[in-house]
Amino acid sequence: MDSVGIGLIGTGFMGKCHALAYGAAKAVFGDVPTPRLELLCEVPAEKARAMADQFGFARATGDWRALINDPAVDIVCITTPNKLHAEIAIAALESGKHVHCEKPMALTLDEAETMARVAAGAKGKTIVGYNYIRNPAFRHARKLIEEGAIGRVIHFRGFVDEDYQADPDLPWTWRATRAEAGLGALGDLGCHMISMAVELMGPVRSVIGDIRTVHATRVSPDDGTPRPVENEDIASAILEFDGGVQGLFSTSRSAWGRKNYMAVEVHGTQGMICFDQERMNELRIYQNAGDRSVQGFTTIMTGPEHEPYGNFVPAAGHQIGFNDLKTIEAASFLRAVAGGTDAYPSFREALEFERVIHAIASSNGRRVIL
Amino acid sequence: MDSVGIGLIGTGFMGKCHALAYGAAKAVFGDVPTPRLELLCEVPAEKARAMADQFGFARATGDWRALINDPAVDIVCITTPNKLHAEIAIAALESGKHVHCEKPMALTLDEAETMARVAAGAKGKTIVGYNYIRNPAFRHARKLIEEGAIGRVIHFRGFVDEDYQADPDLPWTWRATRAEAGLGALGDLGCHMISMAVELMGPVRSVIGDIRTVHATRVSPDDGTPRPVENEDIASAILEFDGGVQGLFSTSRSAWGRKNYMAVEVHGTQGMICFDQERMNELRIYQNAGDRSVQGFTTIMTGPEHEPYGNFVPAAGHQIGFNDLKTIEAASFLRAVAGGTDAYPSFREALEFERVIHAIASSNGRRVIL
Amino acid sequence: MDSVGIGLIGTGFMGKCHALAYGAAKAVFGDVPTPRLELLCEVPAEKARAMADQFGFARATGDWRALINDPAVDIVCITTPNKLHAEIAIAALESGKHVHCEKPMALTLDEAETMARVAAGAKGKTIVGYNYIRNPAFRHARKLIEEGAIGRVIHFRGFVDEDYQADPDLPWTWRATRAEAGLGALGDLGCHMISMAVELMGPVRSVIGDIRTVHATRVSPDDGTPRPVENEDIASAILEFDGGVQGLFSTSRSAWGRKNYMAVEVHGTQGMICFDQERMNELRIYQNAGDRSVQGFTTIMTGPEHEPYGNFVPAAGHQIGFNDLKTIEAASFLRAVAGGTDAYPSFREALEFERVIHAIASSNGRRVIL
Amino acid sequence: MDSVGIGLIGTGFMGKCHALAYGAAKAVFGDVPTPRLELLCEVPAEKARAMADQFGFARATGDWRALINDPAVDIVCITTPNKLHAEIAIAALESGKHVHCEKPMALTLDEAETMARVAAGAKGKTIVGYNYIRNPAFRHARKLIEEGAIGRVIHFRGFVDEDYQADPDLPWTWRATRAEAGLGALGDLGCHMISMAVELMGPVRSVIGDIRTVHATRVSPDDGTPRPVENEDIASAILEFDGGVQGLFSTSRSAWGRKNYMAVEVHGTQGMICFDQERMNELRIYQNAGDRSVQGFTTIMTGPEHEPYGNFVPAAGHQIGFNDLKTIEAASFLRAVAGGTDAYPSFREALEFERVIHAIASSNGRRVIL
Repeated sequence: MDSVGIGLIGTGFMGKCHALAYGAAKAVFGDVPTPRLELLCEVPAEKARAMADQFGFARATGDWRALINDPAVDIVCITTPNKLHAEIAIAALESGKHVHCEKPMALTLDEAETMARVAAGAKGKTIVGYNYIRNPAFRHARKLIEEGAIGRVIHFRGFVDEDYQADPDLPWTWRATRAEAGLGALGDLGCHMISMAVELMGPVRSVIGDIRTVHATRVSPDDGTPRPVENEDIASAILEFDGGVQGLFSTSRSAWGRKNYMAVEVHGTQGMICFDQERMNELRIYQNAGDRSVQGFTTIMTGPEHEPYGNFVPAAGHQIGFNDLKTIEAASFLRAVAGGTDAYPSFREALEFERVIHAIASSNGRRVIL
Repeated sequence: MDSVGIGLIGTGFMGKCHALAYGAAKAVFGDVPTPRLELLCEVPAEKARAMADQFGFARATGDWRALINDPAVDIVCITTPNKLHAEIAIAALESGKHVHCEKPMALTLDEAETMARVAAGAKGKTIVGYNYIRNPAFRHARKLIEEGAIGRVIHFRGFVDEDYQADPDLPWTWRATRAEAGLGALGDLGCHMISMAVELMGPVRSVIGDIRTVHATRVSPDDGTPRPVENEDIASAILEFDGGVQGLFSTSRSAWGRKNYMAVEVHGTQGMICFDQERMNELRIYQNAGDRSVQGFTTIMTGPEHEPYGNFVPAAGHQIGFNDLKTIEAASFLRAVAGGTDAYPSFREALEFERVIHAIASSNGRRVIL
Repeated sequence: MDSVGIGLIGTGFMGKCHALAYGAAKAVFGDVPTPRLELLCEVPAEKARAMADQFGFARATGDWRALINDPAVDIVCITTPNKLHAEIAIAALESGKHVHCEKPMALTLDEAETMARVAAGAKGKTIVGYNYIRNPAFRHARKLIEEGAIGRVIHFRGFVDEDYQADPDLPWTWRATRAEAGLGALGDLGCHMISMAVELMGPVRSVIGDIRTVHATRVSPDDGTPRPVENEDIASAILEFDGGVQGLFSTSRSAWGRKNYMAVEVHGTQGMICFDQERMNELRIYQNAGDRSVQGFTTIMTGPEHEPYGNFVPAAGHQIGFNDLKTIEAASFLRAVAGGTDAYPSFREALEFERVIHAIASSNGRRVIL
Repeated sequence: MDSVGIGLIGTGFMGKCHALAYGAAKAVFGDVPTPRLELLCEVPAEKARAMADQFGFARATGDWRALINDPAVDIVCITTPNKLHAEIAIAALESGKHVHCEKPMALTLDEAETMARVAAGAKGKTIVGYNYIRNPAFRHARKLIEEGAIGRVIHFRGFVDEDYQADPDLPWTWRATRAEAGLGALGDLGCHMISMAVELMGPVRSVIGDIRTVHATRVSPDDGTPRPVENEDIASAILEFDGGVQGLFSTSRSAWGRKNYMAVEVHGTQGMICFDQERMNELRIYQNAGDRSVQGFTTIMTGPEHEPYGNFVPAAGHQIGFNDLKTIEAASFLRAVAGGTDAYPSFREALEFERVIHAIASSNGRRVIL
């Protein structure tokens, strides 16, 4: 398979990100099949046409069903509002396509389970857009842990905060509803941290969770009346990983000053590794080794030693950006699709992340075994 | 009362710290009664004599009972091993002395409760050595929160880590025993964070705690056999403060690279304040105000605007150190003793911190109401 | 002009960077003419073919003269070894093309002057690849300064360091020769800082420079004999800007640990702005305004408020990377070419940067008026 | 000599600092002779009496000549306005006393030379208050450099900034006059950096300096008229050290946001060391050694490995403060006085620092050989 046809549904934040990623993947990596930007779907159709021109797609449509049935399309990228993920993904899989779906998988655990079940029986490959685990700095953290650079892992802390729902004066939106948004901070942000925790620590065995809605109501922009916020602004949990290691987790969408804070600490018997996505090109490590008088946390700047950074820039410290993470993800999926291998995280694996956030959401201070 | 007689029991880490603090308090603050360094107790008596010479105490003794009955002594400073705190403090109070006791109050909650009960009926004042709440940067954080600089407080995170028990090869010591050390990380480190949390957030209403002993045994230096570690290396908890705000807490004495990490985040509806004792002369604040394009976390360096920094140095950014915090505490106690007012935290108030750490220690993943 | 034909000469670090930039510019910005990746030149021709496939160019050639005469090519991107810049750029301009040339312009000031002279009489537009001035954080610094956010500017410091020539054991290469590399750290790194200094401070009026070659010789990989290093590893200078403000400048290619350190400080009568390219998504500002007790350096994370960050990602703190800077530059040139306006910095303007670094190189501790 | 009598002249910023330092030195270090706080001089005499009470001095006087002739006084601490240093120091030496003089030595180089000449013939020891070279973090930097931790030293950068003269609206004061203040930023701040540079790099051989007065006039608080600022706000220089290594130097007293910025970089053939007094308990080092993938700047927190930190606190990361540096200096002088050895920097050595700052002040862009 020398080239792969891409169909993209959605042109918002993530839609543009996918377009850039598939547009750059071949030039960056060389060793992937060439993506053909075949078909873009947006509504209305005129907008689809304009965005196809901008994003470099050959054709446009206003009907996602046309896209998932288009013979030139091999991979369907789903970057729609979350509530549409399940229906489109299932239909695309049933149409024989490969599916690159943004996170979270769906609004409810039931939907996500259905998606995973359908994927298990489909011929298409699946992947969910947990792009932060692609970061070379983060990947290097995992590699170091696997190599024993900090000894046996004994403790984990992971936090993910933004401030897009911090302002008390923000109007009420669909984000506040279970029906349109599902979970709150957990679904939008927390699931990323679970993907990162699992990457570094292995599966989560149990959670004790506690959630809070900071702003019980927000004012409707339609009629000026207060309407209820149905999902959580803040969620915290004590985790236990397979093997019994304790973890701490917290997420907030109302944390002023935090823009893309995804801070991880892994404590080991011989050292510690810290990472924060807000300084995504840095990794900090403390190792108990050598002369005590020069021990301290070392701040590593990513460079060609940290794959696949070097595919973007051959010189350390020059830095990759957020969109580059999606390019790595896209390349990974292109290789899987071309090679007939599984991608990670597939619907099956991403479902496990969903299970964790839903368990935290419903725990109410009691331990939930996963 | 122009001068106050000081009797110091203990000459280790904290003993020296108290000696320096009472030695400097008058020169630093001016407006406190002059401390007279009267009597120092250490065993054996020869060591007491030598340390009295070094620390500037007039007399020395090897008998703490002599010290607490010495008529020239007004304040008894207790910096002994923790297991002796209760007996000495109670005897000193019964002898009519004021008591400056290091934290934690005692090994068990029972002992601490007895101490508080005796103090309630004594004529002497009491104070417990929670010196980190004296830090001008930290005090400024509290002041800003009280003034509404970050709006209504909605979330708290507090962590306190060191690495003095991180090395798997450390020999077994008394620190590993309930009988000699009581709690582990919670008693040594965690209680400090509770004092800080209460300072910023008010009383803790409930906890859900989970503790871990990383190294189940350590090798006895006496006979080379493994002996059990009876107390926790790591403790984490979800807190709830009066008023219902959620907090997150974690402490470890086995966290490589952390030397005096006491990191606090207070999330508010209009901003966030962050502090870390490892950069004790800095405070970080984000405020949702003014031009968005220049918003960010501001790193404040402590200076004369942050009381009582200016009593140490009149120029900002020059920095105070750890021992200076104890000087502030000593001055505070000198004023209370001279003025007949209560000091903070007295045995009564510090007992509340003890209740929290013991609740975390025994929670086992269940919510404990305080 | 709806689309613009791109011809790229060179496929190394900067060649790939240009390919990615022109490949992404339309998708990122929308409001630029669509670049057509027409022709790629590399030697040998087989490599050109392979790289054209990877980078998405329609055709390939091993002959740069064929490229600059190709009718489908509008813009000639020159990313060859520096010693070829002048010849190719001049030929391309004479062929009627627009020229996007990497920095430094040429090995000698004479060559650079010739290039500028030819450009002045040519119908094609020119631009030199000073991509760091495209950084939204840096642009915001400039905007803030222009708006008076730090009052009147009174002092400048700028440093640019890497460590690619730090290792004493590195073999001798062409980089060490005047004939192949021209200047050392000044030509490779220092010129970037001059572009940044001029952006923030205006033209440089005089310099007092001092240069050093740390490693007088390096061992030839060919015959194992020591061969001379003919250009500088380190250069420092005291600058004076138009208006009389003093600046300080230093650059090193032998600075261990520095990977892309480009640190700038602008001191003003009402504040200070600091920037470092190694944290390219951050800007630090101190403003003398409001309550003294909360004054400090504010660390701004770039976001949509800082143009054109939002064209890459609509959410703050997610970060752009090095290659994105070139995309901004490419878009800027596409707009200039399509609109018939001048690009910045053109050969004329970039020549001024060259004058400064050559003046520093030859100053030998004496003031040189520019 | 078991005890040493201290006479202190001055009770401002540095006077209090000396009082605290000599008050604490014995308790902190143990191995020094006991300082007896004998006599304090301030004007008027009533203030002297009050400050003696606060600082713990036995007696008070309003006459510095009485102090330098007091038989109980062994060490004379001079913390008066700078213009009095020379007269008092010379008189004290002639009276047979040891002299602990604050920096800068004097207002003019002539005066400083006279002081050094008198000291050379006196029986008393001398020391000048360059307290920043006492910092354990800084001393460790020196030790590491001496041990070759960064290979051969090849470049130096040193900056020292404060903002106490940044505000354009500050009134005119004596600080602006040659007669009362001597040099500006160089005399107050810059000389500290020279002491630090010499400590790490050895003697300065030549300088090329350039100075600026940002605010040509300031308004007199007396009559509201503008009066000239006679000394420099900013000074920069290119240095050359013995051995030929290049250094860069800059200082400003008008640098908003900088409170006690003393930033040092030492570049070596195998690494780099960075230090900033604003984070005085940290040291950063990069070493070219071992696995490239984990190389980076390591942030060392000071601890007992870094002498004499452990004399203050036995646990790393707890931090010492500014006043503790003076305690180390006082202890050093007490040892010298008791042992009959020379202290560092004596008047002879400190004179060399004075030569450098005066050379920078008068260089006017020309190389000055020292």
